Amino acid sequence: MKIIDLRFTPIAIADPPLRSSYGLHAPYALRTVVELVGEDGLVGVSEAHGGEQTLADFERAREAVVGHDVYDLARVWLAIVRTFGVTAGVDAADRSHTHVLPGESRLDVPLRVYAAIEVAALDLIGKMVDKPVCDVLGGRVRDEVPFSAYLFFKHGGGGGVGEDVRSDVWGEALTPESVVEQAIAMIAEYGFGSVKLKAGVFDPDVEIETMHALRKALGPEIPLRIDPNGAWSVETSLRVGTELAGALEYLEDPTPGLDGMAAVRRGLLASGVDLPLASNIAVTSFADVPEAVRSDAVQVILGDHHYWGGPRAVTQLGRLCETFGLGLSMHSNSHLGVSLLAMTHLAAATPGLTYACDTHYPWQHVEDEILQGGRVPIVNGAVRVPDGPGLGVDLDRDALARGRARYERCDYRSRDDAAEMCRIVDPTWKRMVPAW
Amino acid sequence: MKIIDLRFTPIAIADPPLRSSYGLHAPYALRTVVELVGEDGLVGVSEAHGGEQTLADFERAREAVVGHDVYDLARVWLAIVRTFGVTAGVDAADRSHTHVLPGESRLDVPLRVYAAIEVAALDLIGKMVDKPVCDVLGGRVRDEVPFSAYLFFKHGGGGGVGEDVRSDVWGEALTPESVVEQAIAMIAEYGFGSVKLKAGVFDPDVEIETMHALRKALGPEIPLRIDPNGAWSVETSLRVGTELAGALEYLEDPTPGLDGMAAVRRGLLASGVDLPLASNIAVTSFADVPEAVRSDAVQVILGDHHYWGGPRAVTQLGRLCETFGLGLSMHSNSHLGVSLLAMTHLAAATPGLTYACDTHYPWQHVEDEILQGGRVPIVNGAVRVPDGPGLGVDLDRDALARGRARYERCDYRSRDDAAEMCRIVDPTWKRMVPAW
Repeated sequence: MKIIDLRFTPIAIADPPLRSSYGLHAPYALRTVVELVGEDGLVGVSEAHGGEQTLADFERAREAVVGHDVYDLARVWLAIVRTFGVTAGVDAADRSHTHVLPGESRLDVPLRVYAAIEVAALDLIGKMVDKPVCDVLGGRVRDEVPFSAYLFFKHGGGGGVGEDVRSDVWGEALTPESVVEQAIAMIAEYGFGSVKLKAGVFDPDVEIETMHALRKALGPEIPLRIDPNGAWSVETSLRVGTELAGALEYLEDPTPGLDGMAAVRRGLLASGVDLPLASNIAVTSFADVPEAVRSDAVQVILGDHHYWGGPRAVTQLGRLCETFGLGLSMHSNSHLGVSLLAMTHLAAATPGLTYACDTHYPWQHVEDEILQGGRVPIVNGAVRVPDGPGLGVDLDRDALARGRARYERCDYRSRDDAAEMCRIVDPTWKRMVPAW
Repeated sequence: MKIIDLRFTPIAIADPPLRSSYGLHAPYALRTVVELVGEDGLVGVSEAHGGEQTLADFERAREAVVGHDVYDLARVWLAIVRTFGVTAGVDAADRSHTHVLPGESRLDVPLRVYAAIEVAALDLIGKMVDKPVCDVLGGRVRDEVPFSAYLFFKHGGGGGVGEDVRSDVWGEALTPESVVEQAIAMIAEYGFGSVKLKAGVFDPDVEIETMHALRKALGPEIPLRIDPNGAWSVETSLRVGTELAGALEYLEDPTPGLDGMAAVRRGLLASGVDLPLASNIAVTSFADVPEAVRSDAVQVILGDHHYWGGPRAVTQLGRLCETFGLGLSMHSNSHLGVSLLAMTHLAAATPGLTYACDTHYPWQHVEDEILQGGRVPIVNGAVRVPDGPGLGVDLDRDALARGRARYERCDYRSRDDAAEMCRIVDPTWKRMVPAW
């Protein structure tokens, strides 16, 4: 079926004041809803990064996409590559982008644009053939996809501004004790079987203490992860890694760059600590993988279809990880249910996925969801793979319109966690890499 | 659509007396035609290796396949893995199998069985959705797929026995001059733009002379390859590689094993010769790739959907090759048009394919083809990607029945090039690795 139109709807969704080494989440997260319209009126949907530049990037790609058959995805990719003036293949994305937020690099624009188109195309194909997206990708190896609780140091507030202010269901969490409370509450609500802390916010000793407190409160059965987004020196990473070795299933991006990660790996092994290092910062594209393998800098890759080039690329990443004995987990940004279900279908169709996926979904609010029927259930820490056609989503047009109206009300057009950090917490704050 | 039945038809096709380091092609090549029957009567087709053991392997997998939906391929694979009692993932195939003919190893039976099922399933899906298999795989990056002329040292005769004897259209070719004539005739008929010689048959000096004669006769524009199937020592490989460096696009499997290949690579580079080494013997599965990359033993992998685990696996191999800067070409065994078109669709959907594919197709005869309409055209050295649904093949039932009757008349049930070599050429012949 020929693609006759694309619709891009920018939306804003309330986002609580979550901390990371990049700064502070602003009151709205920006997303784009992409709709791919087939000639017989069927529509495929996906959810992508947001803001003005993203919208302009999508618009720029319109001519590369419209007119193609929805199955003709390889040529859609080549056309997008031509549009953005980059070389196809691994050169389409440059090497790791530690300086920017994952998924926000200008270097991976063609991959991100294509990824959103591919998801919408797979949704449309699934609807055409009455099969879930996981089956279009090659079939599922699991019926439910496990996700991990994603803990944050958090200021008070539920996100949003003015009429969009949301209730603060999780409360402030700026101490080890309150993060433990956050974990217990999140597990109680969603049944998560593994837990990740976004770190790189406070002195590493506080974050080590937090992890020990989590281990003590949650018991030995819950796998734990910590991710300071590269905020630590090699030396600090070694100290934290050694301190937490017995408590962690993996240590994520302790320090920036493949050289730094490799040094941490070597140092830990030299101390007898075989703790896997995970990354979505030192490794953000296929181009990063050979050096990561060669130097043993990374043992677990966090894939993300939104910026690795779509679900098919991530299934290929899964095979690559299996081949080289790497683990595969999944990265997340703030997102709604369309992305959650795309991640779920992809994870279901990726045998090489070896860890529960990240998701920010618990931080978003039912008022901001754009799906008919409301939020996607997470039960026992997992999302059930929908059996219906495509992604298994139907857009709630009123909710989508409200999301767009929020976008109009929102007074910024790109994500800037550092600016928000200065505005709210500390006017002199600057991102330091490494900070400790 | 649910798979309700599988049909396996063993066939024999006339095969001329082609030489390699494995021995001599016997008068028939054995193949299996696999048909996957959907509940509404639509049938998907594929072509696989042949003989009694292959047939038994397929029969053993029947229960693992029947009853699944045709899209449910990941679970079909898992069920096949369970049936054959091997571990899923890279362990399903063990490391390289230099001692056996490519595609004939007992170690990769689950992959080969699944591969044939996957091709038939993709054909069936393509028919269901009225799309060519390349589009089901993710879309095509090329409209025609280039193949390479595949030259052999050859005894007189066109293959077949008794009523199945075929005319010898190519003639005997046991000297450099006659191989040049073979090349010229094959290029005249099919328009091939690149040429490969199956070597490891005569003294390397004869084969070097043959390559120089080909270069002289064909001119500088035609890329040449030589493949002795691991018949040479490292020392001989270095001598041949250095002699032929300027004349070859790659040197294929000069010596057995990854260690040997790595030694050849190091030796050539030390002599200032950056000639890529290709392999389908030292590298036959994903499990071989990490060491091949680590030791730089192989710069071009020859994939083959028949034993790498199906077309989707080879598209994943393509991404892996792109990622690690490896070239990708395609291996072939003696085959008919169903395999040729499966290879064509796969190659069309694999951006990372960087070389013309191998094919034995010119060595087979129109009398043995099982497709309605006869043989698949190779024009200007390429096969046009069919636009019709599925693989774009319709079986000629009478021709298939004749193939089965030939199988019944054929007095062997497995490929044994060494036995045929002893029978026809030299009763004392034994495969020596290395032979020179």
